[in-house]
Parts: sequence; structure tokens; C-alpha cells
Amino acid sequence: MGRALILFAHGARAASWAAPFERLRDLTAARLPDVPVSLAFLELMEPRLPAEVARLAAQRIDEITVVPVFLGQGGHLLRDLPLLVDQLRLDHPGVTIKVAGAVGEDPAVLAAMTDYCVGSL
Amino acid sequence: MGRALILFAHGARAASWAAPFERLRDLTAARLPDVPVSLAFLELMEPRLPAEVARLAAQRIDEITVVPVFLGQGGHLLRDLPLLVDQLRLDHPGVTIKVAGAVGEDPAVLAAMTDYCVGSL
Repeated sequence: MGRALILFAHGARAASWAAPFERLRDLTAARLPDVPVSLAFLELMEPRLPAEVARLAAQRIDEITVVPVFLGQGGHLLRDLPLLVDQLRLDHPGVTIKVAGAVGEDPAVLAAMTDYCVGSL
Repeated sequence: MGRALILFAHGARAASWAAPFERLRDLTAARLPDVPVSLAFLELMEPRLPAEVARLAAQRIDEITVVPVFLGQGGHLLRDLPLLVDQLRLDHPGVTIKVAGAVGEDPAVLAAMTDYCVGSL
């Protein structure tokens, strides 16, 4: 029994696309040494979210927090992710699955992005 | 003659998707009162980047910095944006167009996203 954190990202064809997400996973994992922290993708990259949840459930994880590493809340977060999570809750009734807000909505993330934009001029 | 900053984002079908990008534009503009700061999109939303560059060029802007508000560097930044910018430089020879790195590659943005992920658990 235990908790896990999944960073949920879109996925892309270019392998290089995942680099900042992998850094984010590594930085987050370093701060949470007792919690499994992993990446999962909506499409185009592996693992997909259902496979990652199944893997964790098989390791007796019973509480999973999904953090959408997206900037905007479009159809993927408004429609695709809720449908995925509904199905996952049916498939894994012993696992509590929580979904956080998108990282792009966080005020501190927005502040850091603002600093970056201002500094780019 | 003057400088301008364009925050370049992907675009999406859901109008709500743009909200964090609009906040980012407003926060950035507040820090740069003497510089036009605007959003432009790759697809699905208006204005597209070429229309926004043309609008600024018509206002005697001669130096534009484009900041990709993307987390990962996939095909859109590796291929689509460079092609767009090459064409814009041909179309507007009097305008210097600079392209910054993606916001998701910035260490301070990554640090803020890490804090958010850790705090979501």
C-alpha cells in the first residue's frame, strides 16, 4: 500500500520533445524519495496512462495523483483525461486516483514563465 | 521603430485553453509597459503568427522576439516554427525576428513546475 505520482503529458513524435518532462520527473522524484514518480502520456509516447496505472496498481500502490503537465486546459484535459480516469477507476476499484490542476494554471509557474518572457526581450 | 514581444502558443479548439496564455501575456505586458506584448498561435486560434508579425510590422516595429510558450520541443518548434520564421524574414526584410528557447526548457520554470508537482501529492 502506498502513494504514487504520475506526471501526465501529451506525447509527441519527436523523442526530444520528452526531455523537459523527463527533467521534471527527475527533479520531482529527487524531492520525493519515498514516492514513485513516473511519466505517462496521452498519445504518441509510452507508457500511456492506463498502462502506467496498471503497473503501479500491481505494485500495491493504492493512491495515485495525476498531475497534468499541460499549459492550457483544452479538450485533452476537459474531455480525454476525465474519460480515461473514469475508466481507470472502474478498472482499479482499490486505487484512489486524484487529478490535480494543470501546471500551467499554477500562479508560481505563471510567474516563472512571466520572468522568462520578460527576460527574453 | 521599436521592439515587440510575441508569445507563440499552439492553439486549441476550446476557447478556455487560451486562458493561462492570456494571463501570461497580461503579466508580461505589465512588466514591459513600453513594449507591445501579444499572443499568436500556430493553429486553431487567431491571430496566427504571420498575421501578428504583419500587424506589428505595419506599426513600424522593427525587432520582434518570439517566445515559444511550449513545454516540449517537438515537431512544432523543431520544424514548423523555423519554417514560419524563415518565411516571415523573407516577407518582412526590415524586421529582425529573434526566436527564444521554449519556456519549458527554462530552469526557473522547471523549478516552479517541480514545486507544483511535489505540492500536488
